[in-house]
Amino acid sequence: MERRLRAVEVARRAGAEALLASTPAAVAWSTGFAAEIDSGPSPFSLAPLALLAADETPVLIVSDDDADGAAATGCEVRSYRGFSVEPIEALGGAARVLAGVVGGRRVAVEAGALPAGLAAGLDWVDAGAELARARAVKDADELAAIRAAIELCDVGQREARLRAEPGLTELELWAHVRGAIESAAGARTPILADLVAGPRTGATGGAPESRPMAEGELVLCDLVPRRAGYWGDSCATFALGQPPASAAARHRRASERLARVLDSVRPGVVAGDLDATAREGLDYPHHSGHGLGCDWHEEPRIVPGSQTVLEQGMVVAFEPGCYGDGEGARVEQVVLVTADGCEILSGHGLEL
Amino acid sequence: MERRLRAVEVARRAGAEALLASTPAAVAWSTGFAAEIDSGPSPFSLAPLALLAADETPVLIVSDDDADGAAATGCEVRSYRGFSVEPIEALGGAARVLAGVVGGRRVAVEAGALPAGLAAGLDWVDAGAELARARAVKDADELAAIRAAIELCDVGQREARLRAEPGLTELELWAHVRGAIESAAGARTPILADLVAGPRTGATGGAPESRPMAEGELVLCDLVPRRAGYWGDSCATFALGQPPASAAARHRRASERLARVLDSVRPGVVAGDLDATAREGLDYPHHSGHGLGCDWHEEPRIVPGSQTVLEQGMVVAFEPGCYGDGEGARVEQVVLVTADGCEILSGHGLEL
Repeated sequence: MERRLRAVEVARRAGAEALLASTPAAVAWSTGFAAEIDSGPSPFSLAPLALLAADETPVLIVSDDDADGAAATGCEVRSYRGFSVEPIEALGGAARVLAGVVGGRRVAVEAGALPAGLAAGLDWVDAGAELARARAVKDADELAAIRAAIELCDVGQREARLRAEPGLTELELWAHVRGAIESAAGARTPILADLVAGPRTGATGGAPESRPMAEGELVLCDLVPRRAGYWGDSCATFALGQPPASAAARHRRASERLARVLDSVRPGVVAGDLDATAREGLDYPHHSGHGLGCDWHEEPRIVPGSQTVLEQGMVVAFEPGCYGDGEGARVEQVVLVTADGCEILSGHGLEL
Repeated sequence: MERRLRAVEVARRAGAEALLASTPAAVAWSTGFAAEIDSGPSPFSLAPLALLAADETPVLIVSDDDADGAAATGCEVRSYRGFSVEPIEALGGAARVLAGVVGGRRVAVEAGALPAGLAAGLDWVDAGAELARARAVKDADELAAIRAAIELCDVGQREARLRAEPGLTELELWAHVRGAIESAAGARTPILADLVAGPRTGATGGAPESRPMAEGELVLCDLVPRRAGYWGDSCATFALGQPPASAAARHRRASERLARVLDSVRPGVVAGDLDATAREGLDYPHHSGHGLGCDWHEEPRIVPGSQTVLEQGMVVAFEPGCYGDGEGARVEQVVLVTADGCEILSGHGLEL
């Protein structure tokens, strides 16, 4: 994989002999191993790590619980005791295995994630920001994984439109949406989501709550599922029945800016310029877009003033919105930057 | 809160002047602030931290995104930039705020969690294991929080029995169960779960998959939801229609051991002895029980040989199981250790 060469290059530039991927995102990116992320730290184990060095098979450092899944990636696996009836000693177990794998080499780490108790025995330097930037251009297998995650977005967006009706609460709609996504994935699926109706659409979104939806309201549905370590993303805003003219106008203005910014996407364009194109005439308090992959928000960030230059192979979500007076609309599509423009990867409907 | 005195005492015994809670669990325990844990690390911020010192108001160190929620706890809040259109600099922002809060004092940390990039500027010592042990006896407000989480278990277990039927997939049943729990909670809810039917019950459980359930099969349902930072726990095994006699026998044997071990619970009893009581005549590959609170598995661990002595105010889940030949049953209840026995907190049915 092309990206493993980039990973090793990040370490070299940081003055290190190897890279120690320390976040679930960088571990998934460099090895294909997607750690569980949906219930917080485990009492039995630390988050997985991966060591990459030039001309070596990557090594995954995981607890026994993840050893089979790690081995399925083709990487070398070194494990320590996880879930068991023995005394819990995750930090000590992981530290011993890690020391053996690193073998005294200087390692470039993600210092915002690597636990202090593991770093204590290492000669380390932080390369977290550089590693994050190295993930922006996607390999072919990564693009396939993102397409598969976006398929789940499409399923969820379809279900949201199918099920939404006055009287249903946001949480009841969410249960339908999540259920459809997990059935399509065949597995439990981490999902970030905005799913709100009515006045909260004016504040850009939020998590679903117990509030019943009502006739004429907008529903803002932003679905971000993770499948095999890669995130999809999508947003649509639709109306329950006949919306006020003001809501239709907001939806139209956001949709026009989305279409316009996608027309401008091609290699060589500066992210800050795309932000200005998306934002023209609108006043939303968030980014105009972002890269996605093993993190749900990564480079290229489409934000004011960004000097990042778009390259072929980047995958970018664009999501202008128009909010105010207790109503708001946002529309989002994910695109692949191609040789002379972009390909829209999203398949969900954007109509009001 | 009594537990804040214990937290400071953990630091003192470690030779430190203050405690820096570094896991979401210890932060929730010491401050009441329940960080989001269901989508992995954020690109915009680090996990929250809390600093506790004798005779000082606890300080929460969070990103702007969590500042309002943190302030609601009554703790002092020091925040750094989170979600924004500015350059992302979570590690630097958190490190600067942390340095100011710590002010050069020696701090006891959880070294399996505190990021190396934050620890680098501190004089620290690891007290993770001691801090975990200090959480075993619950304060009154913690007990109320655990009761509230267990109410969600009861809702989910009721829904599982109500909805389970031949032809429905495990994932479809899971969508009903999770939906019922989240509607009862009024919010999205992290949930660990075993939810399997048929042969996988013989292997102690697993995550729900696409397999349809069939007449006569056992359904093993272990639900572990987190509410306001505290975990509940529960397990029941029930049959779809008429189960084989062998399955009924397994359920009966597990249920008998659960009843017997609960009869033995009182202050002064040794955890390893309770494990032996629960395990007698059975051969399951997991613990017989565990404490729960801000982690879903904590002291007192009910495992072979444990010398931990039960104390009044501990909250413990017991969960003997009987597995083999492609079928298995587990039953679980959570109890509060009282002055002379225990009070069963779980309200879900255990019948086959």
